[in-house]
Amino acid sequence: MQKLIETIRAEGRYLGDSILKVDSFLNHQVDAGLMTDIGQALFERLKPAGAPITKVLTAEASGILPALTTAVAADCRMIYARKSRSKTMVDSFYTADAVSRTRANAVTFYVNQQFLTPEDNVLIIEDFLATGSSISALVNIVQQAGAQLAGIGTVIEKPSEKGREVISRQLPQPCPVASLACIGFDDDNWVAELGRLQVERPSA
Amino acid sequence: MQKLIETIRAEGRYLGDSILKVDSFLNHQVDAGLMTDIGQALFERLKPAGAPITKVLTAEASGILPALTTAVAADCRMIYARKSRSKTMVDSFYTADAVSRTRANAVTFYVNQQFLTPEDNVLIIEDFLATGSSISALVNIVQQAGAQLAGIGTVIEKPSEKGREVISRQLPQPCPVASLACIGFDDDNWVAELGRLQVERPSA
Repeated sequence: MQKLIETIRAEGRYLGDSILKVDSFLNHQVDAGLMTDIGQALFERLKPAGAPITKVLTAEASGILPALTTAVAADCRMIYARKSRSKTMVDSFYTADAVSRTRANAVTFYVNQQFLTPEDNVLIIEDFLATGSSISALVNIVQQAGAQLAGIGTVIEKPSEKGREVISRQLPQPCPVASLACIGFDDDNWVAELGRLQVERPSA
Repeated sequence: MQKLIETIRAEGRYLGDSILKVDSFLNHQVDAGLMTDIGQALFERLKPAGAPITKVLTAEASGILPALTTAVAADCRMIYARKSRSKTMVDSFYTADAVSRTRANAVTFYVNQQFLTPEDNVLIIEDFLATGSSISALVNIVQQAGAQLAGIGTVIEKPSEKGREVISRQLPQPCPVASLACIGFDDDNWVAELGRLQVERPSA
């Protein structure tokens, strides 16, 4: 997705330690028009030939933006996993644990069991695919619900952190995994390139 | 906004203690089409006659959804205040404290000083106007930045918690405050009605 790659090149700031700051357009300040295009691009790449998507699943907070615009493109509801329990969370929840790379803490994702069922055909959408920890937790929740996983989409992939391999090992069956941009690192340099769309298969 | 009110009446669940659960369409599972309409409705009500809106400001997590669709309608960038610091937050930040009613804890909002300046004309958007604590903290951040506050919009207002009065006391000058739906409580009953748009003035 060329417009995204140009924005990353223009506005990304490298902090070292393979961390690229994109908070001017993606995950603090947000370019609303670009985010709309991102949702359309993710849905185009992951649109199933068969049964339509019924739910887009993500985790709060930064995943909410591309997940909402993808759900608008798919014309379905979206769910964002909560990271803490509030007073209003009185129902039964699926839970799964993840580790945040940039926050260095463990978090638990909560999804109300009423909203994800075996009848659902789900796209998982996140802003980053890095270590794969958050997406793995979301795949785990889809599996707990007995729902169908139709695809996984991310805005930016960091192939050096091998999240794609982590997720592949967990997949119950082949599943398309799409990123719109890839970032590579080499000492003090970084490059932004076109993302990848590949059907990942469970490894033996 | 009639479609919103009908959805609240159909899907809202009353938990007692003046708490109405709307997590099937607003703040856990999200109706993406309704959220698009909400953004357009908030922008229509708050669109300034003069200088255009340059930023929509909200706080993570549940405010992100109506703020993003409002920013799409206003064709500008949005900012969501972060609630915790991550490794990538290396710049200078405006901060303000708020108290969550449903989580019963204090939170600090962080906004990068690069993204909000005296040149900005800002709409604050949140999902709920209840005690007014979150919106007050966001007004405080707009004031710290020396930016212009063009209006405040919320999806659901709970007038019994007097947040509108709390915010009014803090306003530096008259400011339109819009809600799309109001919820009232009376013992074990609740009603959802049309929201309010009123220019609030700083009280003496």
